[in-house]
Amino acid sequence: MAQEPRLTLEEMDAYLDEVFPEVHHGGRTLFLEDLGYGTCRVRMKHHPKNLRPGGTISGPAMMTLADYALYVAVLSAVGKVPLAVTTNLSIHFLRKPEVGDLVSETRLLKAGKRLCVGEVTIFSEGVDEPVAHVTGTYSVPPGRFSA
Amino acid sequence: MAQEPRLTLEEMDAYLDEVFPEVHHGGRTLFLEDLGYGTCRVRMKHHPKNLRPGGTISGPAMMTLADYALYVAVLSAVGKVPLAVTTNLSIHFLRKPEVGDLVSETRLLKAGKRLCVGEVTIFSEGVDEPVAHVTGTYSVPPGRFSA
Amino acid sequence: MAQEPRLTLEEMDAYLDEVFPEVHHGGRTLFLEDLGYGTCRVRMKHHPKNLRPGGTISGPAMMTLADYALYVAVLSAVGKVPLAVTTNLSIHFLRKPEVGDLVSETRLLKAGKRLCVGEVTIFSEGVDEPVAHVTGTYSVPPGRFSA
Amino acid sequence: MAQEPRLTLEEMDAYLDEVFPEVHHGGRTLFLEDLGYGTCRVRMKHHPKNLRPGGTISGPAMMTLADYALYVAVLSAVGKVPLAVTTNLSIHFLRKPEVGDLVSETRLLKAGKRLCVGEVTIFSEGVDEPVAHVTGTYSVPPGRFSA
Repeated sequence: MAQEPRLTLEEMDAYLDEVFPEVHHGGRTLFLEDLGYGTCRVRMKHHPKNLRPGGTISGPAMMTLADYALYVAVLSAVGKVPLAVTTNLSIHFLRKPEVGDLVSETRLLKAGKRLCVGEVTIFSEGVDEPVAHVTGTYSVPPGRFSA
Repeated sequence: MAQEPRLTLEEMDAYLDEVFPEVHHGGRTLFLEDLGYGTCRVRMKHHPKNLRPGGTISGPAMMTLADYALYVAVLSAVGKVPLAVTTNLSIHFLRKPEVGDLVSETRLLKAGKRLCVGEVTIFSEGVDEPVAHVTGTYSVPPGRFSA
Repeated sequence: MAQEPRLTLEEMDAYLDEVFPEVHHGGRTLFLEDLGYGTCRVRMKHHPKNLRPGGTISGPAMMTLADYALYVAVLSAVGKVPLAVTTNLSIHFLRKPEVGDLVSETRLLKAGKRLCVGEVTIFSEGVDEPVAHVTGTYSVPPGRFSA
Repeated sequence: MAQEPRLTLEEMDAYLDEVFPEVHHGGRTLFLEDLGYGTCRVRMKHHPKNLRPGGTISGPAMMTLADYALYVAVLSAVGKVPLAVTTNLSIHFLRKPEVGDLVSETRLLKAGKRLCVGEVTIFSEGVDEPVAHVTGTYSVPPGRFSA
Protein backbone atom coordinates (compact mmCIF):
# COMPACT_ATOMS: atom_id res chain seq x y z
CA MET A 1 0.00 0.00 0.00
CA ALA A 2 2.90 2.40 -0.59
CA GLN A 3 0.71 4.87 -2.47
CA GLU A 4 -0.28 8.45 -1.83
CA PRO A 5 -3.53 9.02 0.06
CA ARG A 6 -6.37 10.23 -2.18
CA LEU A 7 -6.83 13.37 -0.08
CA THR A 8 -4.27 15.49 1.71
CA LEU A 9 -4.66 15.88 5.46
CA GLU A 10 -6.12 19.37 4.94
CA GLU A 11 -8.59 18.14 2.32
CA MET A 12 -9.62 15.29 4.62
CA ASP A 13 -10.21 17.64 7.55
CA ALA A 14 -12.34 19.93 5.41
CA TYR A 15 -14.31 17.00 4.02
CA LEU A 16 -14.95 15.44 7.44
CA ASP A 17 -16.20 18.76 8.80
CA GLU A 18 -18.58 18.90 5.87
CA VAL A 19 -20.03 15.37 5.99
CA PHE A 20 -19.53 14.46 9.64
CA PRO A 21 -20.14 17.66 11.68
CA GLU A 22 -22.25 16.08 14.43
CA VAL A 23 -19.35 13.91 15.59
CA HIS A 24 -18.17 17.09 17.29
CA HIS A 25 -21.42 17.55 19.24
CA GLY A 26 -20.66 18.88 22.70
CA GLY A 27 -17.14 20.02 21.80
CA ARG A 28 -14.53 18.90 19.25
CA THR A 29 -12.37 16.09 20.56
CA LEU A 30 -11.17 14.25 17.42
CA PHE A 31 -8.08 15.49 15.61
CA LEU A 32 -6.47 13.93 12.55
CA GLU A 33 -2.69 14.07 13.05
CA ASP A 34 -1.27 11.95 10.28
CA LEU A 35 -2.58 10.50 7.04
CA GLY A 36 -1.28 7.96 4.53
CA TYR A 37 -2.82 5.62 1.99
CA GLY A 38 -5.00 3.40 4.15
CA THR A 39 -3.46 4.65 7.38
CA CYS A 40 -4.02 7.46 9.85
CA ARG A 41 -3.36 8.66 13.36
CA VAL A 42 -6.29 10.28 15.16
CA ARG A 43 -6.18 11.84 18.62
CA MET A 44 -9.14 12.03 20.97
CA LYS A 45 -8.57 14.95 23.31
CA HIS A 46 -9.52 14.50 26.91
CA HIS A 47 -13.08 15.72 27.55
CA PRO A 48 -15.32 15.28 30.61
CA LYS A 49 -18.16 13.95 28.43
CA ASN A 50 -16.10 10.79 27.84
CA LEU A 51 -15.29 9.97 31.45
CA ARG A 52 -16.61 7.10 33.57
CA PRO A 53 -16.47 6.54 37.34
CA GLY A 54 -12.99 5.87 38.62
CA GLY A 55 -11.54 8.30 36.09
CA THR A 56 -11.62 5.95 33.11
CA ILE A 57 -12.66 6.73 29.54
CA SER A 58 -15.96 5.30 28.33
CA GLY A 59 -16.10 2.36 25.95
CA PRO A 60 -18.45 4.16 23.55
CA ALA A 61 -15.99 7.07 23.38
CA MET A 62 -13.31 4.63 22.21
CA MET A 63 -15.73 3.10 19.70
CA THR A 64 -16.51 6.59 18.36
CA LEU A 65 -12.79 7.22 17.93
CA ALA A 66 -12.27 3.89 16.16
CA ASP A 67 -15.23 4.31 13.81
CA TYR A 68 -14.06 7.81 12.88
CA ALA A 69 -10.48 6.66 12.31
CA LEU A 70 -11.59 3.74 10.14
CA TYR A 71 -13.73 6.07 8.05
CA VAL A 72 -10.70 8.34 7.51
CA ALA A 73 -8.55 5.39 6.47
CA VAL A 74 -11.23 4.20 4.03
CA LEU A 75 -11.53 7.66 2.46
CA SER A 76 -7.75 7.86 2.17
CA ALA A 77 -7.87 4.77 -0.05
CA VAL A 78 -11.13 5.14 -1.98
CA GLY A 79 -11.57 8.93 -2.13
CA LYS A 80 -14.60 10.99 -1.20
CA VAL A 81 -17.38 8.42 -0.69
CA PRO A 82 -19.97 9.95 1.64
CA LEU A 83 -22.15 6.87 1.58
CA ALA A 84 -19.60 4.38 2.82
CA VAL A 85 -21.18 2.74 5.86
CA THR A 86 -19.85 0.63 8.70
CA THR A 87 -21.15 -2.93 8.43
CA ASN A 88 -19.44 -4.28 11.51
CA LEU A 89 -17.15 -3.16 14.29
CA SER A 90 -15.53 -5.38 16.91
CA ILE A 91 -13.64 -4.01 19.88
CA HIS A 92 -11.48 -5.63 22.54
CA PHE A 93 -10.95 -3.54 25.66
CA LEU A 94 -7.48 -4.41 26.90
CA ARG A 95 -6.56 -2.10 29.79
CA LYS A 96 -8.03 0.77 31.73
CA PRO A 97 -7.08 3.97 29.92
CA GLU A 98 -5.30 6.78 31.69
CA VAL A 99 -7.18 10.03 32.17
CA GLY A 100 -5.92 12.07 29.25
CA ASP A 101 -5.72 11.97 25.47
CA LEU A 102 -6.14 8.78 23.47
CA VAL A 103 -4.14 8.24 20.29
CA SER A 104 -5.21 5.73 17.64
CA GLU A 105 -3.20 4.11 14.87
CA THR A 106 -5.23 2.73 11.96
CA ARG A 107 -4.40 0.66 8.92
CA LEU A 108 -6.52 -0.96 6.28
CA LEU A 109 -6.06 -4.70 5.88
CA LYS A 110 -8.08 -4.66 2.68
CA ALA A 111 -9.15 -1.84 0.38
CA GLY A 112 -11.59 -3.68 -1.84
CA LYS A 113 -14.08 -2.45 -4.41
CA ARG A 114 -17.01 -3.36 -2.22
CA LEU A 115 -15.59 -3.87 1.27
CA CYS A 116 -12.77 -2.24 3.19
CA VAL A 117 -11.48 -3.90 6.36
CA GLY A 118 -9.16 -2.24 8.83
CA GLU A 119 -7.77 -2.36 12.33
CA VAL A 120 -7.37 0.39 14.90
CA THR A 121 -5.11 0.21 17.93
CA ILE A 122 -5.83 2.75 20.68
CA PHE A 123 -3.27 3.95 23.21
CA SER A 124 -3.27 6.28 26.18
CA GLU A 125 -0.81 8.97 25.19
CA GLY A 126 2.69 8.04 26.24
CA VAL A 127 1.88 4.45 27.23
CA ASP A 128 3.22 1.57 25.14
CA GLU A 129 0.61 -1.08 25.83
CA PRO A 130 -2.65 -0.52 23.92
CA VAL A 131 -5.93 0.14 25.75
CA ALA A 132 -8.15 -1.20 22.98
CA HIS A 133 -8.03 -2.93 19.62
CA VAL A 134 -10.73 -2.65 16.97
CA THR A 135 -11.43 -4.32 13.66
CA GLY A 136 -14.15 -3.10 11.35
CA THR A 137 -15.63 -3.30 7.88
CA TYR A 138 -16.92 -0.49 5.70
CA SER A 139 -19.18 -1.18 2.73
CA VAL A 140 -18.49 1.03 -0.29
CA PRO A 141 -21.47 1.76 -2.56
CA PRO A 142 -21.18 0.19 -6.04
CA GLY A 143 -19.68 2.46 -8.67
CA ARG A 144 -18.17 4.87 -6.15
CA PHE A 145 -14.78 3.24 -5.88
CA SER A 146 -12.41 4.81 -8.36
CA ALA A 147 -9.17 2.97 -7.57
CA MET B 1 -32.78 -18.78 33.29
CA ALA B 2 -36.35 -18.66 34.65
CA GLN B 3 -35.30 -16.87 37.83
CA GLU B 4 -36.12 -13.51 39.31
CA PRO B 5 -33.77 -10.63 38.48
CA ARG B 6 -31.49 -9.67 41.37
CA LEU B 7 -32.77 -6.10 41.34
CA THR B 8 -36.24 -4.77 40.61
CA LEU B 9 -36.58 -2.32 37.75
CA GLU B 10 -36.77 0.56 40.23
CA GLU B 11 -33.67 -0.61 42.10
CA MET B 12 -31.81 -0.98 38.80
CA ASP B 13 -32.74 2.52 37.68
CA ALA B 14 -31.59 3.99 40.98
CA TYR B 15 -28.35 2.02 40.86
CA LEU B 16 -27.54 2.99 37.26
CA ASP B 17 -28.11 6.67 38.05
CA GLU B 18 -25.66 6.28 40.92
CA VAL B 19 -22.82 4.44 39.13
CA PHE B 20 -23.35 5.50 35.52
CA PRO B 21 -24.51 9.15 35.59
CA GLU B 22 -22.31 10.41 32.75
CA VAL B 23 -24.07 8.17 30.22
CA HIS B 24 -26.78 10.84 30.33
CA HIS B 25 -24.37 13.67 29.40
CA GLY B 26 -26.12 16.12 27.09
CA GLY B 27 -29.61 14.86 27.97
CA ARG B 28 -31.07 11.56 29.15
CA THR B 29 -31.93 9.27 26.25
CA LEU B 30 -31.73 5.74 27.75
CA PHE B 31 -34.77 4.28 29.51
CA LEU B 32 -35.09 0.82 31.01
CA GLU B 33 -38.55 -0.49 30.16
CA ASP B 34 -38.49 -4.12 31.15
CA LEU B 35 -36.22 -6.30 33.28
CA GLY B 36 -35.90 -10.03 33.86
CA TYR B 37 -33.14 -12.39 34.95
CA GLY B 38 -30.52 -11.87 32.26
CA THR B 39 -32.88 -9.94 30.01
CA CYS B 40 -33.99 -6.36 29.52
CA ARG B 41 -35.61 -3.93 27.11
CA VAL B 42 -33.96 -0.51 26.87
CA ARG B 43 -35.24 2.40 24.79
CA MET B 44 -33.03 5.11 23.33
CA LYS B 45 -35.15 8.20 22.84
CA HIS B 46 -34.61 10.20 19.72
CA HIS B 47 -32.08 13.01 20.30
CA PRO B 48 -30.30 15.32 17.83
CA LYS B 49 -26.90 14.45 19.35
CA ASN B 50 -27.24 10.96 17.89
CA LEU B 51 -28.07 11.93 14.31
CA ARG B 52 -25.91 11.58 11.22
CA PRO B 53 -26.31 13.13 7.73
CA GLY B 54 -29.29 11.77 5.84
CA GLY B 55 -31.27 11.54 9.05
CA THR B 56 -29.78 8.28 10.29
CA ILE B 57 -28.72 7.40 13.82
CA SER B 58 -25.00 7.19 14.53
CA GLY B 59 -23.23 3.87 14.99
CA PRO B 60 -21.63 4.94 18.28
CA ALA B 61 -25.08 5.86 19.62
CA MET B 62 -26.19 2.28 18.94
CA MET B 63 -23.03 0.95 20.57
CA THR B 64 -23.72 3.08 23.63
CA LEU B 65 -27.22 1.65 23.82
CA ALA B 66 -25.95 -1.91 23.47
CA ASP B 67 -23.21 -1.54 26.06
CA TYR B 68 -25.67 -0.03 28.54
CA ALA B 69 -28.25 -2.75 27.92
CA LEU B 70 -25.66 -5.51 28.34
CA TYR B 71 -24.54 -3.98 31.62
CA VAL B 72 -28.14 -3.97 32.84
CA ALA B 73 -28.58 -7.62 31.85
CA VAL B 74 -25.35 -8.56 33.63
CA LEU B 75 -26.42 -6.77 36.83
CA SER B 76 -29.82 -8.47 36.67
CA ALA B 77 -28.02 -11.82 36.90
CA VAL B 78 -25.04 -11.11 39.16
CA GLY B 79 -26.32 -8.28 41.34
CA LYS B 80 -24.67 -4.93 42.08
CA VAL B 81 -21.15 -5.27 40.67
CA PRO B 82 -19.87 -1.79 39.89
CA LEU B 83 -16.55 -3.06 38.62
CA ALA B 84 -17.88 -5.34 35.89
CA VAL B 85 -16.15 -4.21 32.70
CA THR B 86 -16.77 -4.83 29.02
CA THR B 87 -14.00 -6.95 27.55
CA ASN B 88 -15.34 -7.07 24.00
CA LEU B 89 -18.25 -5.79 21.97
CA SER B 90 -19.03 -6.74 18.39
CA ILE B 91 -21.73 -5.02 16.36
CA HIS B 92 -23.30 -5.74 12.98
CA PHE B 93 -25.12 -2.83 11.40
CA LEU B 94 -27.98 -4.34 9.42
CA ARG B 95 -30.21 -1.55 8.09
CA LYS B 96 -30.45 2.22 8.18
CA PRO B 97 -32.48 3.12 11.27
CA GLU B 98 -35.56 5.30 11.04
CA VAL B 99 -35.40 8.74 12.63
CA GLY B 100 -37.02 8.09 15.99
CA ASP B 101 -36.63 5.93 19.06
CA LEU B 102 -34.57 2.76 19.11
CA VAL B 103 -35.67 -0.22 21.19
CA SER B 104 -33.23 -2.96 22.23
CA GLU B 105 -33.91 -6.49 23.42
CA THR B 106 -31.09 -8.11 25.40
CA ARG B 107 -30.50 -11.60 26.75
CA LEU B 108 -27.52 -13.20 28.39
CA LEU B 109 -26.20 -16.31 26.67
CA LYS B 110 -24.00 -17.09 29.66
CA ALA B 111 -24.00 -15.77 33.21
CA GLY B 112 -20.71 -17.19 34.45
CA LYS B 113 -18.73 -16.54 37.59
CA ARG B 114 -16.00 -14.73 35.67
CA LEU B 115 -17.51 -13.89 32.28
CA CYS B 116 -21.00 -12.96 31.16
CA VAL B 117 -21.83 -13.07 27.45
CA GLY B 118 -24.96 -11.59 25.93
CA GLU B 119 -26.63 -10.45 22.75
CA VAL B 120 -28.56 -7.28 22.00
CA THR B 121 -30.91 -6.82 19.06
CA ILE B 122 -31.77 -3.21 18.20
CA PHE B 123 -34.93 -2.15 16.37
CA SER B 124 -36.36 1.12 15.12
CA GLU B 125 -39.61 1.41 17.04
CA GLY B 126 -42.45 -0.25 15.19
CA VAL B 127 -40.25 -1.95 12.57
CA ASP B 128 -39.87 -5.74 12.61
CA GLU B 129 -36.48 -6.12 10.97
CA PRO B 130 -33.58 -5.26 13.30
CA VAL B 131 -31.20 -2.36 12.58
CA ALA B 132 -28.26 -3.80 14.50
CA HIS B 133 -27.14 -6.89 16.39
CA VAL B 134 -24.51 -6.88 19.11
CA THR B 135 -22.69 -9.53 21.12
CA GLY B 136 -20.52 -8.66 24.06
CA THR B 137 -18.65 -9.97 27.05
CA TYR B 138 -18.44 -8.53 30.55
CA SER B 139 -15.75 -9.59 32.97
CA VAL B 140 -16.91 -9.90 36.57
CA PRO B 141 -14.29 -9.25 39.27
CA PRO B 142 -13.39 -12.35 41.31
CA GLY B 143 -15.35 -12.75 44.50
CA ARG B 144 -18.08 -10.32 43.48
CA PHE B 145 -20.42 -12.85 41.92
CA SER B 146 -22.90 -14.00 44.52
CA ALA B 147 -25.13 -16.27 42.41
CA MET C 1 -39.22 -13.47 6.67
CA ALA C 2 -42.35 -15.67 6.52
CA GLN C 3 -41.53 -16.89 3.02
CA GLU C 4 -40.75 -20.26 1.55
CA PRO C 5 -37.09 -21.26 1.31
CA ARG C 6 -35.72 -21.07 -2.25
CA LEU C 7 -34.71 -24.73 -2.18
CA THR C 8 -36.38 -27.68 -0.53
CA LEU C 9 -34.38 -29.61 2.04
CA GLU C 10 -33.73 -32.35 -0.52
CA GLU C 11 -32.57 -29.83 -3.15
CA MET C 12 -30.32 -28.16 -0.59
CA ASP C 13 -28.73 -31.47 0.41
CA ALA C 14 -28.05 -32.37 -3.21
CA TYR C 15 -26.62 -28.92 -3.93
CA LEU C 16 -24.34 -28.94 -0.89
CA ASP C 17 -22.98 -32.35 -1.81
CA GLU C 18 -22.22 -30.96 -5.25
CA VAL C 19 -20.49 -27.70 -4.28
CA PHE C 20 -19.16 -28.50 -0.82
CA PRO C 21 -18.06 -32.17 -0.89
CA GLU C 22 -14.76 -31.69 0.98
CA VAL C 23 -16.55 -30.58 4.14
CA HIS C 24 -17.18 -34.28 4.64
CA HIS C 25 -13.46 -35.18 4.51
CA GLY C 26 -12.73 -37.96 6.97
CA GLY C 27 -16.38 -38.96 7.35
CA ARG C 28 -19.72 -37.16 7.03
CA THR C 29 -20.74 -35.44 10.26
CA LEU C 30 -23.01 -32.57 9.13
CA PHE C 31 -26.72 -33.25 8.59
CA LEU C 32 -29.37 -30.71 7.61
CA GLU C 33 -32.49 -31.46 9.64
CA ASP C 34 -34.79 -28.52 9.06
CA LEU C 35 -34.93 -25.68 6.55
CA GLY C 36 -36.94 -22.46 6.27
CA TYR C 37 -36.46 -19.10 4.59
CA GLY C 38 -33.30 -17.82 6.25
CA THR C 39 -33.35 -20.50 8.93
CA CYS C 40 -32.03 -24.02 9.38
CA ARG C 41 -31.17 -26.67 11.93
CA VAL C 42 -27.93 -28.58 11.29
CA ARG C 43 -26.62 -31.47 13.37
CA MET C 44 -22.97 -32.33 13.78
CA LYS C 45 -22.73 -36.02 14.61
CA HIS C 46 -20.21 -37.05 17.19
CA HIS C 47 -16.90 -38.04 15.55
CA PRO C 48 -13.48 -38.71 17.10
CA LYS C 49 -11.82 -36.27 14.68
CA ASN C 50 -13.55 -33.40 16.50
CA LEU C 51 -12.51 -34.31 20.04
CA ARG C 52 -10.07 -32.49 22.30
CA PRO C 53 -8.42 -33.64 25.54
CA GLY C 54 -10.82 -33.98 28.42
CA GLY C 55 -13.52 -35.24 26.08
CA THR C 56 -14.56 -31.85 24.74
CA ILE C 57 -15.36 -30.89 21.14
CA SER C 58 -12.85 -28.71 19.32
CA GLY C 59 -13.49 -25.04 18.64
CA PRO C 60 -12.70 -25.36 14.93
CA ALA C 61 -15.26 -28.17 14.67
CA MET C 62 -17.90 -25.77 16.02
CA MET C 63 -16.73 -23.07 13.63
CA THR C 64 -17.04 -25.53 10.74
CA LEU C 65 -20.60 -26.31 11.81
CA ALA C 66 -21.49 -22.62 12.10
CA ASP C 67 -19.99 -21.67 8.75
CA TYR C 68 -21.83 -24.52 7.05
CA ALA C 69 -25.12 -23.65 8.72
CA LEU C 70 -24.81 -19.97 7.78
CA TYR C 71 -24.12 -20.93 4.17
CA VAL C 72 -27.28 -23.07 4.14
CA ALA C 73 -29.34 -20.20 5.58
CA VAL C 74 -27.94 -17.81 2.97
CA LEU C 75 -28.77 -20.19 0.12
CA SER C 76 -32.28 -20.66 1.52
CA ALA C 77 -32.83 -16.92 1.07
CA VAL C 78 -30.86 -16.07 -2.07
CA GLY C 79 -30.95 -19.34 -4.02
CA LYS C 80 -28.06 -21.26 -5.55
CA VAL C 81 -25.09 -18.88 -5.31
CA PRO C 82 -21.94 -20.98 -5.32
CA LEU C 83 -19.68 -17.94 -5.04
CA ALA C 84 -21.12 -16.53 -1.84
CA VAL C 85 -18.15 -16.18 0.52
CA THR C 86 -17.81 -15.67 4.24
CA THR C 87 -16.38 -12.23 4.96
CA ASN C 88 -16.36 -12.51 8.73
CA LEU C 89 -17.24 -14.96 11.46
CA SER C 90 -17.22 -14.29 15.18
CA ILE C 91 -17.71 -17.00 17.78
CA HIS C 92 -18.24 -16.92 21.54
CA PHE C 93 -17.52 -20.20 23.31
CA LEU C 94 -19.94 -20.35 26.23
CA ARG C 95 -19.67 -23.73 27.91
CA LYS C 96 -17.80 -27.00 27.53
CA PRO C 97 -19.84 -29.19 25.17
CA GLU C 98 -20.90 -32.67 26.16
CA VAL C 99 -19.38 -35.59 24.28
CA GLY C 100 -22.04 -36.28 21.67
CA ASP C 101 -23.95 -34.59 18.87
CA LEU C 102 -24.11 -30.81 18.50
CA VAL C 103 -27.28 -29.19 17.17
CA SER C 104 -27.26 -25.68 15.68
CA GLU C 105 -30.13 -23.26 15.13
CA THR C 106 -29.50 -20.55 12.53
CA ARG C 107 -31.40 -17.49 11.42
CA LEU C 108 -30.52 -14.66 9.09
CA LEU C 109 -30.69 -11.18 10.60
CA LYS C 110 -30.38 -9.62 7.17
CA ALA C 111 -30.79 -11.05 3.68
CA GLY C 112 -29.43 -8.16 1.61
CA LYS C 113 -28.55 -7.91 -2.05
CA ARG C 114 -24.82 -7.70 -1.27
CA LEU C 115 -24.46 -8.90 2.30
CA CYS C 116 -26.26 -11.51 4.38
CA VAL C 117 -25.78 -11.52 8.16
CA GLY C 118 -26.89 -14.32 10.43
CA GLU C 119 -26.51 -15.88 13.85
CA VAL C 120 -26.00 -19.49 14.86
CA THR C 121 -26.61 -20.87 18.33
CA ILE C 122 -25.00 -24.25 19.05
CA PHE C 123 -26.25 -26.70 21.67
CA SER C 124 -25.16 -30.06 22.98
CA GLU C 125 -28.08 -32.31 22.18
CA GLY C 126 -30.60 -32.33 24.99
CA VAL C 127 -29.03 -29.45 26.93
CA ASP C 128 -30.86 -26.10 27.15
CA GLU C 129 -27.93 -23.74 27.66
CA PRO C 130 -25.98 -23.08 24.45
CA VAL C 131 -22.33 -24.08 24.09
CA ALA C 132 -21.46 -21.45 21.49
CA HIS C 133 -22.92 -18.46 19.67
CA VAL C 134 -21.75 -17.28 16.25
CA THR C 135 -22.46 -14.29 14.06
CA GLY C 136 -21.24 -14.08 10.50
CA THR C 137 -21.48 -12.25 7.20
CA TYR C 138 -21.64 -13.69 3.71
CA SER C 139 -20.92 -11.54 0.67
CA VAL C 140 -23.13 -12.30 -2.33
CA PRO C 141 -21.60 -11.66 -5.77
CA PRO C 142 -23.28 -8.79 -7.68
CA GLY C 143 -26.04 -9.86 -10.02
CA ARG C 144 -26.45 -13.28 -8.42
CA PHE C 145 -29.17 -12.33 -5.96
CA SER C 146 -32.57 -13.01 -7.48
CA ALA C 147 -34.88 -12.15 -4.57
CA MET D 1 6.97 -7.38 25.80
CA ALA D 2 10.70 -7.71 25.23
CA GLN D 3 10.99 -10.80 27.43
CA GLU D 4 12.02 -14.35 26.80
CA PRO D 5 9.26 -16.83 25.97
CA ARG D 6 8.46 -19.17 28.86
CA LEU D 7 9.18 -22.23 26.73
CA THR D 8 11.75 -22.74 24.01
CA LEU D 9 10.49 -23.67 20.57
CA GLU D 10 11.49 -27.29 21.19
CA GLU D 11 9.71 -27.38 24.55
CA MET D 12 6.62 -25.83 22.99
CA ASP D 13 6.55 -28.40 20.18
CA ALA D 14 6.87 -31.27 22.65
CA TYR D 15 4.16 -29.80 24.88
CA LEU D 16 1.71 -29.22 22.00
CA ASP D 17 2.17 -32.79 20.79
CA GLU D 18 1.36 -33.94 24.31
CA VAL D 19 -1.77 -31.84 24.98
CA PHE D 20 -3.06 -31.18 21.48
CA PRO D 21 -2.39 -34.36 19.44
CA GLU D 22 -5.76 -34.50 17.69
CA VAL D 23 -5.12 -31.22 15.86
CA HIS D 24 -2.97 -33.37 13.58
CA HIS D 25 -5.84 -35.75 12.73
CA GLY D 26 -5.60 -36.77 9.09
CA GLY D 27 -1.98 -35.65 8.73
CA ARG D 28 0.21 -33.02 10.39
CA THR D 29 -0.09 -29.62 8.73
CA LEU D 30 0.79 -27.14 11.50
CA PHE D 31 4.44 -26.24 12.12
CA LEU D 32 5.78 -23.75 14.64
CA GLU D 33 8.59 -21.83 12.95
CA ASP D 34 9.39 -19.00 15.32
CA LEU D 35 8.61 -18.21 18.94
CA GLY D 36 8.98 -15.14 21.16
CA TYR D 37 7.30 -13.82 24.28
CA GLY D 38 3.69 -13.41 23.15
CA THR D 39 4.55 -13.91 19.49
CA CYS D 40 4.92 -16.81 17.06
CA ARG D 41 4.98 -17.76 13.42
CA VAL D 42 3.06 -20.91 12.50
CA ARG D 43 2.90 -22.49 9.05
CA MET D 44 -0.01 -24.53 7.74
CA LYS D 45 1.32 -26.85 5.08
CA HIS D 46 -0.80 -27.35 2.02
CA HIS D 47 -3.07 -30.39 2.40
CA PRO D 48 -6.01 -31.61 0.30
CA LYS D 49 -8.22 -31.86 3.40
CA ASN D 50 -8.22 -28.06 3.61
CA LEU D 51 -9.22 -27.30 0.03
CA ARG D 52 -12.49 -25.86 -1.24
CA PRO D 53 -13.89 -25.73 -4.81
CA GLY D 54 -11.98 -23.37 -7.06
CA GLY D 55 -8.72 -24.31 -5.37
CA THR D 56 -9.13 -22.11 -2.32
CA ILE D 57 -8.37 -22.98 1.31
CA SER D 58 -11.31 -23.47 3.64
CA GLY D 59 -12.29 -20.90 6.23
CA PRO D 60 -12.35 -23.46 9.05
CA ALA D 61 -8.79 -24.48 8.13
CA MET D 62 -7.71 -20.86 8.63
CA MET D 63 -9.63 -20.71 11.92
CA THR D 64 -7.85 -23.86 13.08
CA LEU D 65 -4.52 -22.28 12.24
CA ALA D 66 -5.41 -19.06 14.09
CA ASP D 67 -6.70 -20.82 17.18
CA TYR D 68 -3.57 -22.96 17.34
CA ALA D 69 -1.28 -19.96 16.86
CA LEU D 70 -3.07 -17.96 19.56
CA TYR D 71 -2.74 -20.88 21.97
CA VAL D 72 1.00 -21.01 21.29
CA ALA D 73 1.34 -17.26 21.88
CA VAL D 74 -0.60 -17.54 25.15
CA LEU D 75 1.59 -20.39 26.37
CA SER D 76 4.72 -18.43 25.43
CA ALA D 77 3.61 -15.72 27.87
CA VAL D 78 1.92 -17.64 30.68
CA GLY D 79 3.73 -20.99 30.60
CA LYS D 80 2.24 -24.49 30.48
CA VAL D 81 -1.47 -23.97 31.13
CA PRO D 82 -3.34 -26.90 29.63
CA LEU D 83 -6.72 -25.57 30.68
CA ALA D 84 -6.53 -22.21 28.93
CA VAL D 85 -9.63 -22.05 26.74
CA THR D 86 -10.69 -19.85 23.84
CA THR D 87 -13.59 -17.62 24.87
CA ASN D 88 -14.01 -15.85 21.55
CA LEU D 89 -12.50 -15.78 18.09
CA SER D 90 -13.32 -13.32 15.34
CA ILE D 91 -12.03 -13.69 11.78
CA HIS D 92 -12.12 -11.41 8.75
CA PHE D 93 -11.55 -13.15 5.43
CA LEU D 94 -9.74 -10.63 3.24
CA ARG D 95 -8.68 -12.31 0.00
CA LYS D 96 -8.83 -15.70 -1.66
CA PRO D 97 -5.73 -17.61 -0.56
CA GLU D 98 -3.38 -19.14 -3.07
CA VAL D 99 -3.17 -22.91 -3.26
CA GLY D 100 -0.14 -23.59 -1.08
CA ASP D 101 1.17 -23.02 2.42
CA LEU D 102 -0.30 -20.43 4.76
CA VAL D 103 1.94 -18.54 7.16
CA SER D 104 0.58 -16.80 10.25
CA GLU D 105 2.10 -14.07 12.40
CA THR D 106 0.69 -13.77 15.91
CA ARG D 107 1.16 -11.30 18.73
CA LEU D 108 -0.56 -10.88 22.06
CA LEU D 109 -2.17 -7.51 22.65
CA LYS D 110 -2.67 -8.34 26.30
CA ALA D 111 -1.20 -11.04 28.53
CA GLY D 112 -3.40 -10.65 31.59
CA LYS D 113 -3.79 -12.78 34.68
CA ARG D 114 -7.27 -13.90 33.64
CA LEU D 115 -7.56 -13.04 29.96
CA CYS D 116 -5.09 -13.01 27.08
CA VAL D 117 -6.03 -11.23 23.85
CA GLY D 118 -4.12 -11.54 20.60
CA GLU D 119 -4.21 -11.03 16.89
CA VAL D 120 -3.20 -13.33 14.06
CA THR D 121 -2.51 -12.21 10.51
CA ILE D 122 -2.53 -14.99 7.90
CA PHE D 123 -0.69 -14.82 4.58
CA SER D 124 -0.34 -17.04 1.55
CA GLU D 125 3.35 -17.78 1.43
CA GLY D 126 5.21 -15.19 -0.59
CA VAL D 127 2.27 -12.78 -0.90
CA ASP D 128 2.37 -9.44 0.94
CA GLU D 129 -1.34 -8.76 1.36
CA PRO D 130 -2.94 -10.84 4.13
CA VAL D 131 -5.67 -13.40 3.39
CA ALA D 132 -7.25 -13.26 6.84
CA HIS D 133 -7.04 -11.43 10.16
CA VAL D 134 -8.13 -12.90 13.47
CA THR D 135 -8.53 -11.60 16.99
CA GLY D 136 -9.22 -13.87 19.92
CA THR D 137 -9.37 -14.19 23.67
CA TYR D 138 -8.11 -17.01 25.87
CA SER D 139 -9.27 -17.38 29.44
CA VAL D 140 -6.58 -18.52 31.86
CA PRO D 141 -7.73 -20.54 34.87
CA PRO D 142 -7.28 -18.75 38.20
CA GLY D 143 -4.04 -19.53 39.98
CA ARG D 144 -2.34 -20.95 36.91
CA PHE D 145 -0.71 -17.75 35.73
CA SER D 146 2.77 -17.50 37.17
CA ALA D 147 3.95 -14.24 35.57
